[in-house]
Amino acid sequence: MQGVNIAVVGATGLVGTVFLSILEERHFPARSLKLFASARSAGKRVPVGDRTYVVEEVTGAESFRGMDIVFISADTGVSKRLAPLAVQAGAVVIDDSSAFRMEPDVPLVVPEVNAADLRGHRGIIAIPNCSTTPLVMVLHALRQAAAIERVVAATYQSVSGTGRAAVEELMEQSRAALEGRDIAPKAYLHPIAFNVLPQIDDFLENGYTKEEWKMVTETRKILHLPDLALSATCVRVPVKVCHSEAVQVELSKPVSPEEARALLAKMPGVRVLDEPERNEYPMPRLLAGTDNVYVGRIRKDASHPRGLAMWVVADNLRKGAALNAIQIAEELIKQGAFQAKSASTGSARAV
Amino acid sequence: MQGVNIAVVGATGLVGTVFLSILEERHFPARSLKLFASARSAGKRVPVGDRTYVVEEVTGAESFRGMDIVFISADTGVSKRLAPLAVQAGAVVIDDSSAFRMEPDVPLVVPEVNAADLRGHRGIIAIPNCSTTPLVMVLHALRQAAAIERVVAATYQSVSGTGRAAVEELMEQSRAALEGRDIAPKAYLHPIAFNVLPQIDDFLENGYTKEEWKMVTETRKILHLPDLALSATCVRVPVKVCHSEAVQVELSKPVSPEEARALLAKMPGVRVLDEPERNEYPMPRLLAGTDNVYVGRIRKDASHPRGLAMWVVADNLRKGAALNAIQIAEELIKQGAFQAKSASTGSARAV
Repeated sequence: MQGVNIAVVGATGLVGTVFLSILEERHFPARSLKLFASARSAGKRVPVGDRTYVVEEVTGAESFRGMDIVFISADTGVSKRLAPLAVQAGAVVIDDSSAFRMEPDVPLVVPEVNAADLRGHRGIIAIPNCSTTPLVMVLHALRQAAAIERVVAATYQSVSGTGRAAVEELMEQSRAALEGRDIAPKAYLHPIAFNVLPQIDDFLENGYTKEEWKMVTETRKILHLPDLALSATCVRVPVKVCHSEAVQVELSKPVSPEEARALLAKMPGVRVLDEPERNEYPMPRLLAGTDNVYVGRIRKDASHPRGLAMWVVADNLRKGAALNAIQIAEELIKQGAFQAKSASTGSARAV
Repeated sequence: MQGVNIAVVGATGLVGTVFLSILEERHFPARSLKLFASARSAGKRVPVGDRTYVVEEVTGAESFRGMDIVFISADTGVSKRLAPLAVQAGAVVIDDSSAFRMEPDVPLVVPEVNAADLRGHRGIIAIPNCSTTPLVMVLHALRQAAAIERVVAATYQSVSGTGRAAVEELMEQSRAALEGRDIAPKAYLHPIAFNVLPQIDDFLENGYTKEEWKMVTETRKILHLPDLALSATCVRVPVKVCHSEAVQVELSKPVSPEEARALLAKMPGVRVLDEPERNEYPMPRLLAGTDNVYVGRIRKDASHPRGLAMWVVADNLRKGAALNAIQIAEELIKQGAFQAKSASTGSARAV
């Protein structure tokens, strides 16, 4: 293993920062590393391990020359603009935005669920929305016992999903509120401190928000269940890190809570934390900074003969974003993607 | 109208305080007012309108002598001990605890929904849990169009539902967290600042919490639907006042969002606040201190052919507790309860 050349676009953002620290934690085989961000952050010096990198601005496809993997965590517009340039330069793009997720030739991947979909990518691989990833991992574990017939989810999403400015806004607004002052919202349409906001992203014609609809369409794509019945209500809560979800699942036959716990415990990347007699269950402040999807409050849905209810928490910056991307990169390496590429497209990369 | 003699047990608590201010706001016809609280608060002076009352401790049935209505907002143990004494003294008890709600001869009442159940009470009337009240008002409006077949709810409940100490804990813990300090939880089992807690009240054998199960059994009783399929996940969020609920309802026939909005708009005590194109929907910080149940995000449930999804917010101290109790008292007065009682049980009250 010689390692891969890797570039991070959005390197100074919350997800980019977590991405860089996970690279180190996992001893990711990076041969070289380039950090990109907006003009505003260009020139910043960012320490990674025992080296310091200077953040650059992308100037064109040449910025990505020689890169094997380009990870992009920025807004959708940036992804749309830069991903084709990176592909043109011969890199594989792993994109954190919603720009390409639903494109038929773009694999949308959670490695524990559908790593096989990586084969046949055409340069761009998308990672799901941070509220979709934990859900599909739970559903994938449960469908080993019975078909998933319907899913109802209500989310409790942290502000770090919006980015660094939103985390600062929560902190500043909270401080102001405690002092009896008001601070006008900027990152959100309404105050987030000591409040909950039943809107994430814009509204669609059907009354759902884009965030809610992403959960529907992305879950269907990842699970290869194009007709899965799913409804979500996505809500922002004044929490820094970790998204939580109240999930009710209807299955094709009854699955007991015990059976569900056993299936979830066996699922890679999932941990059962379900000890009501000890008041133990997943919570954001307990689990921020961890890598797994945690499931608790697993019980028979009292309102449906084949239903299960549960409570799911995962770190939205890690498994919900950066970690999932790195796991995809690791999977590509395992599949020999870059050895093959070096051999077959070596000349193309010199463009 | 000569007015009624009224006593408030738990007068210094959050709900008691709101109760006293609503009495004034609504010009409640109180002829006399007595305030009771625990030994710890006895002797405190509490201004109500232009008078000041001294808080007393209940010493026995004689404390309630001459009272027409005794409102109790304390813990379940206090209600169990004091309600029979108040009844013995000839008063009607309106109780905010879960002590008597499910007793067959105790009406459990939201006046807009089942005022008729007040007739035939035997001295004790219960008000529902603060997460049940908004839900039954919404369901009652919707069942004018079709039968309710199943309900799935996830709640976002504020700390004021736990009481004054919990509000202080949220504020102090938030302040500490902003300063990088930790404060050990007291009112809750886990930190509530910048966190969400998927447990309210104790766990039952079936994996639901008592809070969740109250929503099930109380909703069934109030709506006279003993077999209604209902499942809830009750979650505490770092919000001061107002409970929010993501609600999905399955009906016996399709009801359009437009029809649902019209029915909800007609329902007394309910307001539709549903303007997604203007980013308007119910939120706790917007609605704390208001009297109505607000409903927004009304949409066709994309996962069920006869389903509706919506978002409900109500002030848990007002409609969820004190206001509902006062509305019951007003209803009793309207029904002539105290005129009749004065005539028929006048001597009994002199005991």
